[in-house]
Amino acid sequence: MQLFWHKGFHDTSLKDLERALEMHPGSIYATFGSKGQLFQEALERYAHLALVELERTLAAHESPLAGLAAYLRQLGGLRDQAVPSRACMLVKSLLELGEREKDAREKAEALLTTMEKRFIDSFAKAQQTGELDEELDPTRLGRRLQAEVMGLRSFAQRDVDSAAVHALADDMASSLEALRSSAH
Amino acid sequence: MQLFWHKGFHDTSLKDLERALEMHPGSIYATFGSKGQLFQEALERYAHLALVELERTLAAHESPLAGLAAYLRQLGGLRDQAVPSRACMLVKSLLELGEREKDAREKAEALLTTMEKRFIDSFAKAQQTGELDEELDPTRLGRRLQAEVMGLRSFAQRDVDSAAVHALADDMASSLEALRSSAH
Repeated sequence: MQLFWHKGFHDTSLKDLERALEMHPGSIYATFGSKGQLFQEALERYAHLALVELERTLAAHESPLAGLAAYLRQLGGLRDQAVPSRACMLVKSLLELGEREKDAREKAEALLTTMEKRFIDSFAKAQQTGELDEELDPTRLGRRLQAEVMGLRSFAQRDVDSAAVHALADDMASSLEALRSSAH
Repeated sequence: MQLFWHKGFHDTSLKDLERALEMHPGSIYATFGSKGQLFQEALERYAHLALVELERTLAAHESPLAGLAAYLRQLGGLRDQAVPSRACMLVKSLLELGEREKDAREKAEALLTTMEKRFIDSFAKAQQTGELDEELDPTRLGRRLQAEVMGLRSFAQRDVDSAAVHALADDMASSLEALRSSAH
C-alpha cells in the first residue's frame, strides 16, 4: 500500500514490488493474481484505514460539525507527517488510472463514494440534532467537503510550508463551523 | 499536450507520442530532447492556455470577486465538455511525478504558483476597491480558492452526473460572493 501510494500504479515496477514484498515474481502473481489486483487490495486497505481515522475523529466529538472540522484540522498537519504522499491515494488513482485499469479505477470510485456517503451522513445527523439548518442540503455539503479534502491534500503535496497547510485547513474548518445554526 | 494530459506522464509510451506527433523516435528526441522535456513543454502550454482562460474571464467582469466566481461556475461545466481529463494537468502531474522526474515536477509546482499568485492578486485588487474587507488575507483566500479549484476538478473526474458538478461549483462560487463587503 505504501509503495503504490507513494509511486502510483504505473511507476511501480515489478522490481519495486519484489523488494517491498520480499517475494519472487512467480509468488506475487500466484498470491495476488496481477499487479492490478494487488493494487486494488492496496486501495481497499488504504480506504479502510482512512475510514477508521475519520470514524475515530467523529466519535471523539459529540457534534458532527465539530467532528468534521476536527478532521479537516488534522489534515492540516499533513506536511509534518512522514507519509508516502500528502495526496489521497484514492484521488491519485482517480487521476492516474486509464481505460486499461478500469477495474482498479472503479474500485477507487466506489471507495470515494463510501467516504462521500460518510460525510453526507454526518451532515444529515447534524440536521437531525438541529445543529444544521433544515434548508441546507446534506448531499451538497458532503460533496463540497469531499472536494475540499481533495483540494487540501493536493495543495499539501505542493512544496509549501507547513503553516500554509495548517492555515488552509483552518479556513476550511472555520467555514464548516460557521454552518452551525444560530438557533442551536 | 492533450495526450499527456489524458494519460499522464508514465502511461504515455513512445509509441503513443510517435502516433500523436506523427514523428519517428529519432526525430522526437532530436526535436524535444527527452520525454521529460517534451512533457515540460506540454505543461507550459497547458498553463498558458489555462491562464489565458482565467484572464479572459476576469477581464469580462468589473469586480474581481465576480470574475473569480464566474471562473468557478465555468469549471462547473467540465463534465459537459470533451476534454482529455476533467482534472487539472498540473495537479495530475504534481500527484504523479516522483523523484526521477524532478525537473518536470518543479515545473508543475512553478506553474501552480503562478496560478495561485493570479488568484491572490485578484483578492488584493478586490481589497483595494473596497469590495473585500481590509482584515481578510488575500494570500489565504488565494490558496483556499486554488485548493477549491483543485478539489472541484478532481471531483469532476469522478463518475458523477453533470448536475452534481454544477451544484458544487455553484456552492463554491456563492461562498466567494458572500465575501463581498456589506459596506460595498
